[in-house]
Amino acid sequence: MVFPKSLEQLINNLQALPSVGQKTAERYGLHLLDMDKEEVKELAASIITARNNIGYCKNCGNLSEGNLCAICLDDNRSEEIIYVVENVTDVIAMEKTENFDGQYHVLKGLISPSKGILPDDINIESLKKRLENPNLKEVVIATNLTIEGDTTSLYLSKIIDQITNNRIVVSRIAHGLPVGGHLNYADDLTIIKAMEGRIKI
Amino acid sequence: MVFPKSLEQLINNLQALPSVGQKTAERYGLHLLDMDKEEVKELAASIITARNNIGYCKNCGNLSEGNLCAICLDDNRSEEIIYVVENVTDVIAMEKTENFDGQYHVLKGLISPSKGILPDDINIESLKKRLENPNLKEVVIATNLTIEGDTTSLYLSKIIDQITNNRIVVSRIAHGLPVGGHLNYADDLTIIKAMEGRIKI
Repeated sequence: MVFPKSLEQLINNLQALPSVGQKTAERYGLHLLDMDKEEVKELAASIITARNNIGYCKNCGNLSEGNLCAICLDDNRSEEIIYVVENVTDVIAMEKTENFDGQYHVLKGLISPSKGILPDDINIESLKKRLENPNLKEVVIATNLTIEGDTTSLYLSKIIDQITNNRIVVSRIAHGLPVGGHLNYADDLTIIKAMEGRIKI
Repeated sequence: MVFPKSLEQLINNLQALPSVGQKTAERYGLHLLDMDKEEVKELAASIITARNNIGYCKNCGNLSEGNLCAICLDDNRSEEIIYVVENVTDVIAMEKTENFDGQYHVLKGLISPSKGILPDDINIESLKKRLENPNLKEVVIATNLTIEGDTTSLYLSKIIDQITNNRIVVSRIAHGLPVGGHLNYADDLTIIKAMEGRIKI
């Protein structure tokens, strides 16, 4: 009886958003009631539009409004290198640096036998096809340093070597101290990886 | 170019919500893309429905889906007491305690000459009409302990006395130490108010 029925419904539905609980949903709900009607209509419409229009790129698995994503369609991007990442959020993080002009491949998950996720369950099949591109020279595996990330990396490097007869370089992103990080604050594994990955100066 | 266009639009629109910046809006946006289509449709619909259906109660200024809010329409609630509060959020906070069975009156603001908010700018006119109810015995002013809260409280107590010829008791909620609070952590004004409001035991 505290909230009018349609506000209560809205507050319940808003809790579907990540880390939005009752209190935050109430704040959002009350704020929406105070917002301009047209603005609210536009917000609701853009939720529907985005959900309906955006799917995954048939080539790389990135977010896309058509069959192929903007990156795969961009002729200015190099075909020589593919960055293999776990999620679309990784693509976003890399693209924000404005530092990479290769292609991506989004796995949408990592191999994890303990969770029952096998190679066939993630987006590897379309990666195999992309290896046939004669311009491709290197595949960089940018999975995180976890058991799943390592397993996936190992599996991918093996099948890429096998399929391409070692024609393509397979590499993995470096793990070490982050910029601004200090040795005495770093965890053991980071220190070990930083030492393993040392570069001659 | 980082996000597909309709996702970018959604992320922009989501930032209209309180304390939602770019990062949070991105999280919400990406999560909405992963949600069930029907669930997303329901969320968008409930935003529109709540915004369109909910207005303010003609009697007390509380949120309402019709002319009168659920509290004003409830025959079981006492007509003897009116709690005057600043905002609908105060009504919600009080109702959650399930401890009050009187009526409310929502001012939708406080008198603040420095901000140019005068008595006519807040919801006082309909409060005057409610004073004619012969069953009404007490008006509790529950504004906060700020300059605006004090000004509003003083103004209201004067006009209520004047209109009702002192027939109605006008009171203000107590200010003092919160339950669980300690004297040595309290601010000066809270200690002073707690002493002023001391009760004989």
